[in-house]
Amino acid sequence: MSSIIYYHAGCPVCIEAERTVVSELQKVSDVTIVNLGEDKTSLADAKSAGVQSVPALVINGLSFHINFGAALSALES
Amino acid sequence: MSSIIYYHAGCPVCIEAERTVVSELQKVSDVTIVNLGEDKTSLADAKSAGVQSVPALVINGLSFHINFGAALSALES
Repeated sequence: MSSIIYYHAGCPVCIEAERTVVSELQKVSDVTIVNLGEDKTSLADAKSAGVQSVPALVINGLSFHINFGAALSALES
Repeated sequence: MSSIIYYHAGCPVCIEAERTVVSELQKVSDVTIVNLGEDKTSLADAKSAGVQSVPALVINGLSFHINFGAALSALES
């Protein structure tokens, strides 16, 4: 089973990606969904996986940015 | 069944996305894979779906850019 994490911040671009890309992936795998706008403690994990903006997927440790909603730096304050 | 098209141009970023994101999606759906570096006739389709760079997915008509490999304009010449 693949490890899939979906990082978002509730933005419109994030919601569109969640409704399409993530909902497809959920048919084959559990997807851990993390809202970095609410869960600031996960910012370090996201960064160490290479995430620079949301929405993003981390699949088996590799980061994939999907379109562009917000930079991680905008979520840090 | 969802309609999923994966546009790429053979670039390293494209190959990484194909090995991970696309291979997950292929577990649940057929994915049409189009190499825009070789198949220039598909550039118009990709553009009209909103694709601006590769690698990108078009899922049920919505475009999702995955990281950044190359701009579509770089593939037009």
